[in-house]
This record gives sequence, structure tokens and C-alpha cells, in this order.
Amino acid sequence: MSILVVGSVAFDTLKTPYGERQKILGGAATYFSLSASYFTDVRVIAVVGEDFTAENEAVMTSRGVDTRGIQHAKGKTFHWSGEYGENVNEARTLNTELNVFESFQPQIPAEYNDSDFLFLANIDPVLQTRVRDAMQNVKLVGGDTMNFWISGHREKLGEMLKRVDVLLINDTEARMLAGDSSLPRAARKVLELGPRALVVKHGEYGATIFFRDGEFAGGHHPFRAPALPLDEVRDPTGAGDSFAGGFMGYIASQGEVSRRVLKHAMFYGSVMGSFSVERFGTERLQALTREEIDKRFEVFRELTHLD
Amino acid sequence: MSILVVGSVAFDTLKTPYGERQKILGGAATYFSLSASYFTDVRVIAVVGEDFTAENEAVMTSRGVDTRGIQHAKGKTFHWSGEYGENVNEARTLNTELNVFESFQPQIPAEYNDSDFLFLANIDPVLQTRVRDAMQNVKLVGGDTMNFWISGHREKLGEMLKRVDVLLINDTEARMLAGDSSLPRAARKVLELGPRALVVKHGEYGATIFFRDGEFAGGHHPFRAPALPLDEVRDPTGAGDSFAGGFMGYIASQGEVSRRVLKHAMFYGSVMGSFSVERFGTERLQALTREEIDKRFEVFRELTHLD
Repeated sequence: MSILVVGSVAFDTLKTPYGERQKILGGAATYFSLSASYFTDVRVIAVVGEDFTAENEAVMTSRGVDTRGIQHAKGKTFHWSGEYGENVNEARTLNTELNVFESFQPQIPAEYNDSDFLFLANIDPVLQTRVRDAMQNVKLVGGDTMNFWISGHREKLGEMLKRVDVLLINDTEARMLAGDSSLPRAARKVLELGPRALVVKHGEYGATIFFRDGEFAGGHHPFRAPALPLDEVRDPTGAGDSFAGGFMGYIASQGEVSRRVLKHAMFYGSVMGSFSVERFGTERLQALTREEIDKRFEVFRELTHLD
Repeated sequence: MSILVVGSVAFDTLKTPYGERQKILGGAATYFSLSASYFTDVRVIAVVGEDFTAENEAVMTSRGVDTRGIQHAKGKTFHWSGEYGENVNEARTLNTELNVFESFQPQIPAEYNDSDFLFLANIDPVLQTRVRDAMQNVKLVGGDTMNFWISGHREKLGEMLKRVDVLLINDTEARMLAGDSSLPRAARKVLELGPRALVVKHGEYGATIFFRDGEFAGGHHPFRAPALPLDEVRDPTGAGDSFAGGFMGYIASQGEVSRRVLKHAMFYGSVMGSFSVERFGTERLQALTREEIDKRFEVFRELTHLD
């Protein structure tokens, strides 16, 4: 099965307690693609500028990612600068240069039309909605968003929410979107906006998936995946997108979308997030093996299972 | 098997987003005793004042708790006043009247000498150390402490830490005690101070137990129990002590202290914490059934187990 992701490819300049890096490859679609590439065929739609090199693109293609949907535009690639303090759950944005990303108009190559799954990474919900509507035959749509769209563009976001099956956001975003400080109550309210399931990411405490009543048959309880207690989170950038890549990639690899598959996908998402933050940028995601992934999956099981 | 707890019995005046209560029964030893009483025989050592009524004591005795170790002193009972905002993980203390608790000198009744397990709730570490040294034959000692002792009384606390098998504290306390913002690294540093295992409570995200290398045979991985995603946390007071009561109570009910028992104890701790916060004060802990507890245990399993 194949998965199509639309989102940002970017350069990141960042500083963490473990060091700093200048203009390294980043962006939600990049992290997502690399992470998902260990599970399934991945196709990416994004836009880059003239400073995006063949070497940058090779990071994706060498993992088998189909980059024919990456549009090359005049100007510079999206460039984010930020830093993390001791609390690695919070990024402080120093500078955001949207550059070519500002006028991004996703074009779907004909070769992508038969994609089985779709992930709408965090971009303007109007664009997310447009891509989603153009891909009517996918089996499942995952989506992400952020505080910017939640606080200032509710109507546009509402259209997008009606069109995603699984929304993946963090605690703060879920509470903001629902206007409710109780997470389970907030989850129920978000599910009323459209998604059949909601994945709320808790940073170092893992993530919880809430199901809308009656969806993905099998009980009404949520399911929680842990995060790995890591000694050193060197660079949290892309952790959420790596989670999404593992989550959606695993689902795509299974074909069917049952509750059992979604629960395992939560674990694989958390596994991929845990790898991602061990090194700066996409370094760790570029050179994993499926064996390492499955070994860590077993660590996650040991971390949570009684017997 | 029996468990002895030494700690505070108090009156709490508190306000949460769900209401307020004046001078209701509280205190670490109270929550602990009630919670543990569903698993094993419980004995309590504490001090109360003249305002502590027979009715108050009956809350414990009606659950079979042995209160012969509760000392009745001249003066008033320890009285804590506080409030919780929307973030129920943080209490704001409005007033602390130690009253008779200020000169608490724990006395161990002869009938308590054969106790099999010991829990040192949060009191002056000098007193914790004294009680622990007087109870040499217990199979396992659990202990709690707080920021006040961590920041200002390290030497006294150090003596106590050398004498507990399992320390139960929260994230902030663990990071403060270790002087390290990374939780797994902090856990390792705390374990070097004495405890064979460390339970770190994450509030609404559950709790993790870290093991010192080679202790409680069976792998070096930590183990994480979830918390129940609750719509309404009416009163978080005593959640940690209820957790400790379920955790230690379950261990005492099993007799042997294996890693398997400790993992199950983490779940029972979390289960009891989840009941405690559903109602104000000790209300919910006074009228549970073992059936309700085991049913919720299964919910916790469903919440975390893949198959």
C-alpha cells in the first residue's frame, strides 16, 4: 500500500541543550516521509526553493520516497529557526521565513492518484481540504494542524476537520481546539467536529488515541502508548511528524484499518518518535533498520505490558 | 500480610473548579490507609487534636483500619487549606496550620511490631528514619517526601533515602532531588541515593517505576502505568497517597515482592488514584468494592495492552 503526504520541506536552524545546527534539512513532510518509509511506499507533495540541493532530495529518495511531487520554485526554501531549553517539550521560535512556502499550491502528480492513504501535515487548512477532496479514493486520511490555525482560522479548519479520519495533535492544541481543559472531554468535543479518531500527543509521556463512539469497532476505551524514557533528547524537532509517519506508515502497511491495527500503529508512532529525537534533524531516521524498529517496539511492550 | 503507615491525619479546607469543602477529613495517612484497606490489614500511626471526632476515626475503623497508633494530643488537628485551578496537577496552598502535627513524635504500639510492610508518608525525614529503624523486620519499606525536605533538608533526607526500598515522588520532586531535568537520568541518580526502585508519578499521565540495576530480578527496563483519562477530576487532593496505598497494599497482599508484583502494584496504585479524585476528600475511597477495583484494573489493561 502507498501513502501520500502533503506538507512542508524546510531548513531548520536550531539550538538545543546538546548543540546547534545551521540550515539542516527539516519540515513536517520530510520527517513524516522518512519515518513512514520503513513501513510502506511514500509519496510526497511539497515546495522547495533554489537553495534545495540534489543532496537534500537524495535524503528522501535514498529511502525510496517518491519525490516527484516536490515542486521547485523560484526563491528560497522555508526556513525555521528555533531553540529548546531544558524543557524539550517547548520550542521557542526565533524566526520563520516562509519563503516559497508562502504561495504553496499543492499539485498532485498523476502518478500519485492511486495512493491508498493520505496524510495532511500541518499547512493551511484550505490547502489540506483541497488535496483531500482531490483524493476521494483513499482508505484513510490522517491530518495535523497547529495553534495558529486553531486560534485564528476556525472556519477553514472546520472544513478540514470534517474530512479527516484521524487527527493528530498535541495536548495544548486539543484543549485549545475544544476550549476545554479536561483532556477526555476535549477529545470528545474534537471528535464531534469530524474525525473518527483523535491522537493526542503528550511529549515525553506518550500519546493517547480516542475513538468516536461506534468507530473502528471494539469497545469505547481510549488507548495509550508510552514514550520511551530517554536519557538524552538531543533534538525534539520533528518528533510529532515522525510519530505520524510511523503511525500512518504502519496502518498503510496493514491495509485494513481495525482498532487492533490502530493500537499497534500508536506504538510504532511512538517508536519512530523516540528514534527521531536521539540525533539532530533527520539523522537518526535516515539510517534505521526494520530490525531496530521492531526491537524497540518490544521495549515499548515491556514498558507497558503486565505479563 | 499487614502494612503499617506513619504520616499525617488532617483536616482539609479546599476549593476546586467543582466546588469547595470546609475541614473535611484528609491527610496522607488517611488516604493511604483507606486505599490500602481494600488489599490488606492496615495499621496507622499519626497524631490528631481535640477537634478530631469519633466520627472521623470511624471513617478508618469502618474500613478495618487499626487506629490504635493514632495519638490524641492537646490542641487542634493539622489543617491544610488550598485550591486547585484548571490545571489540577498543581495545588496552591493558602494556609498550613501544623498544630499538633508540629511536635509529632511517632510511637509504635507493641501490637504493630509484627507489621510485614511499612510506608513512610511525607513527614520530617528524621521521624521517617526513626520509625524505619524501629521496624527492622519488615519485608519492604515504601516512602514519600516533598519539595520542602528536598530543597532544605538534604542531609536528613539522605538518611531516610538509604532506608527505603521504594521511593514514591512526582516528576518535579524527582528532578529537584537529582538536579537533572532528564527524568530517566534523574531516576538513576535518585536510585544511587538508596532506594531499590523509584516510582515517579506524572499526574494525569500515569506513573513510571524505575529499578536499580540488578534489583527485583527481570530486565533493566522501567515500567509505566497509565492514569485513567477522567472527564472530571473533582478533587485531586490525596491522589498520590491513594496511589501509594493501592501500590503498597497490593504488594502486601501478595507477600512476595517480585518485579511482576511491582508492575501489577503500579496498576493498582493508578486505579486507586483514579477513584480518589472522582469525589471530594475520601468520599470515594470509603465506599468502594473489590469488584469495582478489579473492574477498573481491567480498564487500565485495555487502555495499554495491545492484545
